[in-house]
Amino acid sequence: MSTLTDDHAPTPDPSIFEPAGEHISDSLLRTLPGDAYGSAEIFAREQEKIFEKMWLCAARGSDLAKPGDFKTVQIGKESLIISRNRKKEPRAFFNICRHRGARVCSEESGSGKRSFQCPYHAWTYDLDGKLIAAPNLTKMPDVGREEYGLHQAHVREWLGYIWVCLADEPPSFEDTVMGAVRSRLGDIESIDHYQVENLVVGKRIVYDVKANWKLIVENFMECYHCATIHPELTEVLPEFADGFAAQYFVGHGAVFGDEVKGFTVDGSEGVEKIPGVTDDQDRRYYAVTVRPNVFVNLVPDHVIFHRMFPVAHDRTIVECDWLFLPEVVESGVDLEKSIKLFDLVNRQDFEACELCQSVTNSKKYEHGGVLVPSEHHIADFQNWTASAIAG
Amino acid sequence: MSTLTDDHAPTPDPSIFEPAGEHISDSLLRTLPGDAYGSAEIFAREQEKIFEKMWLCAARGSDLAKPGDFKTVQIGKESLIISRNRKKEPRAFFNICRHRGARVCSEESGSGKRSFQCPYHAWTYDLDGKLIAAPNLTKMPDVGREEYGLHQAHVREWLGYIWVCLADEPPSFEDTVMGAVRSRLGDIESIDHYQVENLVVGKRIVYDVKANWKLIVENFMECYHCATIHPELTEVLPEFADGFAAQYFVGHGAVFGDEVKGFTVDGSEGVEKIPGVTDDQDRRYYAVTVRPNVFVNLVPDHVIFHRMFPVAHDRTIVECDWLFLPEVVESGVDLEKSIKLFDLVNRQDFEACELCQSVTNSKKYEHGGVLVPSEHHIADFQNWTASAIAG
Amino acid sequence: MSTLTDDHAPTPDPSIFEPAGEHISDSLLRTLPGDAYGSAEIFAREQEKIFEKMWLCAARGSDLAKPGDFKTVQIGKESLIISRNRKKEPRAFFNICRHRGARVCSEESGSGKRSFQCPYHAWTYDLDGKLIAAPNLTKMPDVGREEYGLHQAHVREWLGYIWVCLADEPPSFEDTVMGAVRSRLGDIESIDHYQVENLVVGKRIVYDVKANWKLIVENFMECYHCATIHPELTEVLPEFADGFAAQYFVGHGAVFGDEVKGFTVDGSEGVEKIPGVTDDQDRRYYAVTVRPNVFVNLVPDHVIFHRMFPVAHDRTIVECDWLFLPEVVESGVDLEKSIKLFDLVNRQDFEACELCQSVTNSKKYEHGGVLVPSEHHIADFQNWTASAIAG
Repeated sequence: MSTLTDDHAPTPDPSIFEPAGEHISDSLLRTLPGDAYGSAEIFAREQEKIFEKMWLCAARGSDLAKPGDFKTVQIGKESLIISRNRKKEPRAFFNICRHRGARVCSEESGSGKRSFQCPYHAWTYDLDGKLIAAPNLTKMPDVGREEYGLHQAHVREWLGYIWVCLADEPPSFEDTVMGAVRSRLGDIESIDHYQVENLVVGKRIVYDVKANWKLIVENFMECYHCATIHPELTEVLPEFADGFAAQYFVGHGAVFGDEVKGFTVDGSEGVEKIPGVTDDQDRRYYAVTVRPNVFVNLVPDHVIFHRMFPVAHDRTIVECDWLFLPEVVESGVDLEKSIKLFDLVNRQDFEACELCQSVTNSKKYEHGGVLVPSEHHIADFQNWTASAIAG
Repeated sequence: MSTLTDDHAPTPDPSIFEPAGEHISDSLLRTLPGDAYGSAEIFAREQEKIFEKMWLCAARGSDLAKPGDFKTVQIGKESLIISRNRKKEPRAFFNICRHRGARVCSEESGSGKRSFQCPYHAWTYDLDGKLIAAPNLTKMPDVGREEYGLHQAHVREWLGYIWVCLADEPPSFEDTVMGAVRSRLGDIESIDHYQVENLVVGKRIVYDVKANWKLIVENFMECYHCATIHPELTEVLPEFADGFAAQYFVGHGAVFGDEVKGFTVDGSEGVEKIPGVTDDQDRRYYAVTVRPNVFVNLVPDHVIFHRMFPVAHDRTIVECDWLFLPEVVESGVDLEKSIKLFDLVNRQDFEACELCQSVTNSKKYEHGGVLVPSEHHIADFQNWTASAIAG
Repeated sequence: MSTLTDDHAPTPDPSIFEPAGEHISDSLLRTLPGDAYGSAEIFAREQEKIFEKMWLCAARGSDLAKPGDFKTVQIGKESLIISRNRKKEPRAFFNICRHRGARVCSEESGSGKRSFQCPYHAWTYDLDGKLIAAPNLTKMPDVGREEYGLHQAHVREWLGYIWVCLADEPPSFEDTVMGAVRSRLGDIESIDHYQVENLVVGKRIVYDVKANWKLIVENFMECYHCATIHPELTEVLPEFADGFAAQYFVGHGAVFGDEVKGFTVDGSEGVEKIPGVTDDQDRRYYAVTVRPNVFVNLVPDHVIFHRMFPVAHDRTIVECDWLFLPEVVESGVDLEKSIKLFDLVNRQDFEACELCQSVTNSKKYEHGGVLVPSEHHIADFQNWTASAIAG
């Protein structure tokens, strides 16, 4: 068991944020300054340097089961159409007609489309984005069908989710997304045991959080707050009451309390265990942060999967899926006790993040706050974001 | 019949907008870049260089029939009082008391005022804007009654509308406003036949459009979209289904379909024809764009008159009047079928403009979209706006 | 009786605002330019240079009677907790946990707290702001309890109100706050007669005014508008109809009309007179402006006390207290006629200020308006604000 380090974090360059102006105690590290959370300008740079450069998790693959099923997703400033072509391969199109720029799809989702037709002048694109029809198109033979196809984003499917990257040259998916899982769990096999791609969505809750996305990440990474705001969670995971997060040590999963029967709001029995989960993993909770927009929570009988969509420096939409075995969901068994636990945790966390957001413009928070020892690993994430937007 | 050119457009200077970064096909021209529609800064420059410099159509003259009738109108950042003096001449006052700057008129409209009195300290102005009374004014003999009169805008009345110009030195009304009509129709007599100043408002509809004013102008100038979004209009004007706008050729009016009896939503008979309309003009639709804020639509039995009031880079108020012969309106005959046609067209157009507005901040629309051949004349308008704000 | 001058006003430096572009008559002085009221940037400088530097009146002391009673107050960008320690001394804490910056108190007010505990990680502060507990705090012996106490603002209690100053080095309370009262009334004893600290709040009304705070101050300082908008007030104080404000002369109080029995909406009898009020002060109204956020109004039987909380360049929250003798309030006597008079005056004034706010971005108000002779003393306030933000 070794202290977690992140191989992907560039060398920190805190100089992009205003240097600290006060002495702090040796036990403490400094957080990012208030501006990092309170400034629309810094958020714009994060959108450009982080959210438009990295792999992001956009949609659950099963929401797009058939060719021509689609969802529109807002990623940073961009609206994307996430869909499947005739071979059921995922595709991600910028939702912008190549002619005069109208929004091609206004619906949130739809199914079984054979093509995408712009509602303004009827330019029409096939399920691979190629321009296939337009009024008088035959009189413009030099207008290439591929050249004037919908702009596309890079796309991958993993863990049953469709991941996209808006950059022209995406970073390695294996090194970044899968690398984050590997760094946290020690290997990729550990997550394979949960068969996340075969699970089905038993519940989805969308939270509208009035806080910067980094406050939500930082909150997820530490457990110093658990004793204060998560009574139900610390009942199930007693070691969380000591303030050390599951994410602090590579490969470590928090152990259920002795009396606890399952990962439920009252510690009672959960549902059928996922077959691949090993004895090592049984009765344990693992949390993984996949920068910049995903949290994965693994317990023996389900997986809780968070996707964050930052929309402003002080507002983040969080979509949370509770994933169970297909037979569990089909059986109609009551999932409420399983769902309730992390729904409570989410609400407790997001309320705390909002309390932090409200002070980010204060003169007294200009240099930020402090991290106690059990939070020191957050500094790694903070240095990474600071470096990313400096790059 | 010659291709329309605009004598008043200054030499285009596209360099003020970011230069295009991609190759485009020879059949196509480029639109303005996304910023031209999506940036509050560029809108502020348009307000200063276009809307505060040119003649704008502010109010229907008949709404101010008597001396002291008034309307308050928002033009760019300015609130104006449009009124008539004792000789019934139109006047346009900045709605700002010369003393401490209070809004003199808070009402949207009113009638028969003998003077305008500021509600704060009772400074009082006559119907020509002169300061005529104020508490203790007699003890300030050096305060000139003219010098401290209400600030005024230049004003003209034409086609039954009151036009204003906020500039100190207005451009020639004859060259610009009347010039736009002449360029489009070939001569001024052609519009005189419709006696627009003698018609009365049968209906006024105010639309709140969440789109940049230029998108509305560009939409009005082309008919490539007609087949897609205007089924009722192309039924009445079959040539519009081919995508060539009435505005493309000097003097051309789109001919009604053979089976069409009138310019109505179902092609049925309209109302009494305007007496001066010539045989050449009968059974035809003419559209005129008077930059920057007016569209005039001429059909044999009525005139549809649009005034645009841009309020933000992404919001434009459009007031549309349906004008008929006085005896038609007085007769109480049902105007609904005539009004319904262009009300539908307006709603279809404005929805399309809003679809375009929503993408203007996308990275993939940074360099804008493209114009097909039947839209190429829009480039002239786009070059004109680019040059105007560069000047 | 001498013309009022303000000893504390630094040398005016009007150059920080755009210089005036037009000639004005000799009888007149110029107001501040439109930007001074209409610009968010200038407001930000005022917050920094005025509201974060000077003594401000934050709360009525009696609202916090016991140790641990508290109110949260928004001052500029800062949320403060105003409270009392175990010795009942007033304290003002920045409402920011020293750990990760969460808002410590979310409630508007509360009573009898023994400590303030952050809801996020349970860092806990005593009633003097000292850090007294936190999870694992004993393992961080170098974290000083005083060093990591809540940030504090300077605090004073006078006239029964708690005044705060956010600056590290506050200006002299005696010279500024008390100095303003002395300059206006001639001495401090004059206000002592009203025993303001012993009166009780008979009524509090909170107004949300869509106007710049300086418009509200300027309005309060002059009475040129009284004849126009304050019919009830000029009935009680006939000299106000002439346009000369009570604040124009040191020590002057406006005399009640001969028929007037009390400072009430209809001039009828008020309530029991405050014992200390002298014969000189009887049947008179005194108004005092304590820059930047207080107005005090003294009449023989009550005191009307305004506190302004500017929240944006175009929005100010005004809290107004009507203070009476304790025995008057306890007796249950009807206070409505006394309250109604100044509530009406407030509403009339604030509506006028909003009329002025709406024109501040006009091109024709770029250089501002003018001050007539009975308003010339406002220029002193305007020069003071201009100098303050230039400093």
